[in-house]
Amino acid sequence: MAGTPRLLINGRAESSVPALDRGLAYGDGVFRTLAIVAGRPRWWEAHLAKLAADCARLQLACPGADLLADDLDRLGPLPDQGVLRITVTRGLGPRGYAPIGLPTRILACWDSPLPEYPAAGLRLRVCNLRLGHQPALAGIKHLNRLENVLARGEWDDPTIHEGVLLDVDGRLVSGVMSNLFLWREGRLLTPRLDRCGVAGVARARLLCLAGQAGLEAAEADLELADLLAAEEVLACNSLMGLRRVAILETRAWPEAVISPRLIPLLDA
Amino acid sequence: MAGTPRLLINGRAESSVPALDRGLAYGDGVFRTLAIVAGRPRWWEAHLAKLAADCARLQLACPGADLLADDLDRLGPLPDQGVLRITVTRGLGPRGYAPIGLPTRILACWDSPLPEYPAAGLRLRVCNLRLGHQPALAGIKHLNRLENVLARGEWDDPTIHEGVLLDVDGRLVSGVMSNLFLWREGRLLTPRLDRCGVAGVARARLLCLAGQAGLEAAEADLELADLLAAEEVLACNSLMGLRRVAILETRAWPEAVISPRLIPLLDA
Repeated sequence: MAGTPRLLINGRAESSVPALDRGLAYGDGVFRTLAIVAGRPRWWEAHLAKLAADCARLQLACPGADLLADDLDRLGPLPDQGVLRITVTRGLGPRGYAPIGLPTRILACWDSPLPEYPAAGLRLRVCNLRLGHQPALAGIKHLNRLENVLARGEWDDPTIHEGVLLDVDGRLVSGVMSNLFLWREGRLLTPRLDRCGVAGVARARLLCLAGQAGLEAAEADLELADLLAAEEVLACNSLMGLRRVAILETRAWPEAVISPRLIPLLDA
Repeated sequence: MAGTPRLLINGRAESSVPALDRGLAYGDGVFRTLAIVAGRPRWWEAHLAKLAADCARLQLACPGADLLADDLDRLGPLPDQGVLRITVTRGLGPRGYAPIGLPTRILACWDSPLPEYPAAGLRLRVCNLRLGHQPALAGIKHLNRLENVLARGEWDDPTIHEGVLLDVDGRLVSGVMSNLFLWREGRLLTPRLDRCGVAGVARARLLCLAGQAGLEAAEADLELADLLAAEEVLACNSLMGLRRVAILETRAWPEAVISPRLIPLLDA
């Protein structure tokens, strides 16, 4: 995802923000990462709803849907494929932690192809870093992402596509940049995210669409052993959609089981 | 702490940073807040050492002491009293969590008096938010400060100076913007910070100086009950120095016990 993106800050074509913005000072804000497919941001309404929900959790004023649609128009024609990041911070305010500020909104559009992954499936590792529990922030895609940064820093082997994150109690949470699902005995399960992790839009869509398709799909308390015992493991996020996992450390899943049915559901 | 600070970014008199700086994108960086007293940043060497230690924890290249001293000169004459914030981020890099970037350093100097507090002591409340455990980040003054922001957002009564933070297990950690000490039976104790919290420069100085002065001073596993049972409670940070606590919720400490001996130690 090389290259310089087009940027829009509070509706203006600018490329920088005040150095004292609370997004930088304290990570006081939230963001969304969207795929641009066929010249349009995929799952736009779902992303806007999640942005509003995350802002509400932090008592942060969320820009309205009309304003964000106007911003999107102002960015200019979208590429056929690309990535759009929407960031909302608490903006500028007095020094100190008190949550006072005038929100800043940042749109960044990368006009470059989406990351590619092998059709045979992803290769995953298990990260050493364990996620801490913070129910007040769990599920939110906020700007406090140092745990993800540290976990992603654990490997630089380009054949490893994703890292599995466990929490301090050893429970399964997610990937570093994705949510995880497993299929076992006719059930589609994904870790509960009420203690830590990010509850992504692709995950919510899949839970909903799988249910509508007559599959049993639910959140559960899971462990690494559940992944290893699964008939199939899947990872999803807004950029890569849903992908099957081919290898996790020394465990391999050579054959697809449920993914051929699930992937078209999410992509529909 | 009103007013616009003077800013220096990577040695240049600028006021904004690229919107894609990893400090904003992920809170990927660290910072220091120093008091300017009599025209000089107080405890400069200790702050630089802590900045370097925190950068090392995040595998972030720390600007050298000479470079930061040059930056300080370039900021121009310092006020008699003021606040200096030094921020180091992982700067600009490719999109994604992988910790790759060219560090950004930001100096901000507020030419305004230090916050004032009553001589009789501080008034504290107990925050509802409980800090999560993350040993990989514990002690570091990193830019992921949403827990502090949420905790500080719990009150707006200006007569309350600070909030007490407990962790998810109910252990005592710190104040929202300060470290805490208690005095009981001839011992000066402060919470261990290996699971969460920020290990500030004032705290480290006080631990060291109290020991040199022949007092027993140590880190310990403490609870709220230990604070309430203390003969005296103290809060410290780099801006306010060391202050005695007069009131915590309904508990009052009308008389100073050890603070008249400790405050000159830290200020020396």
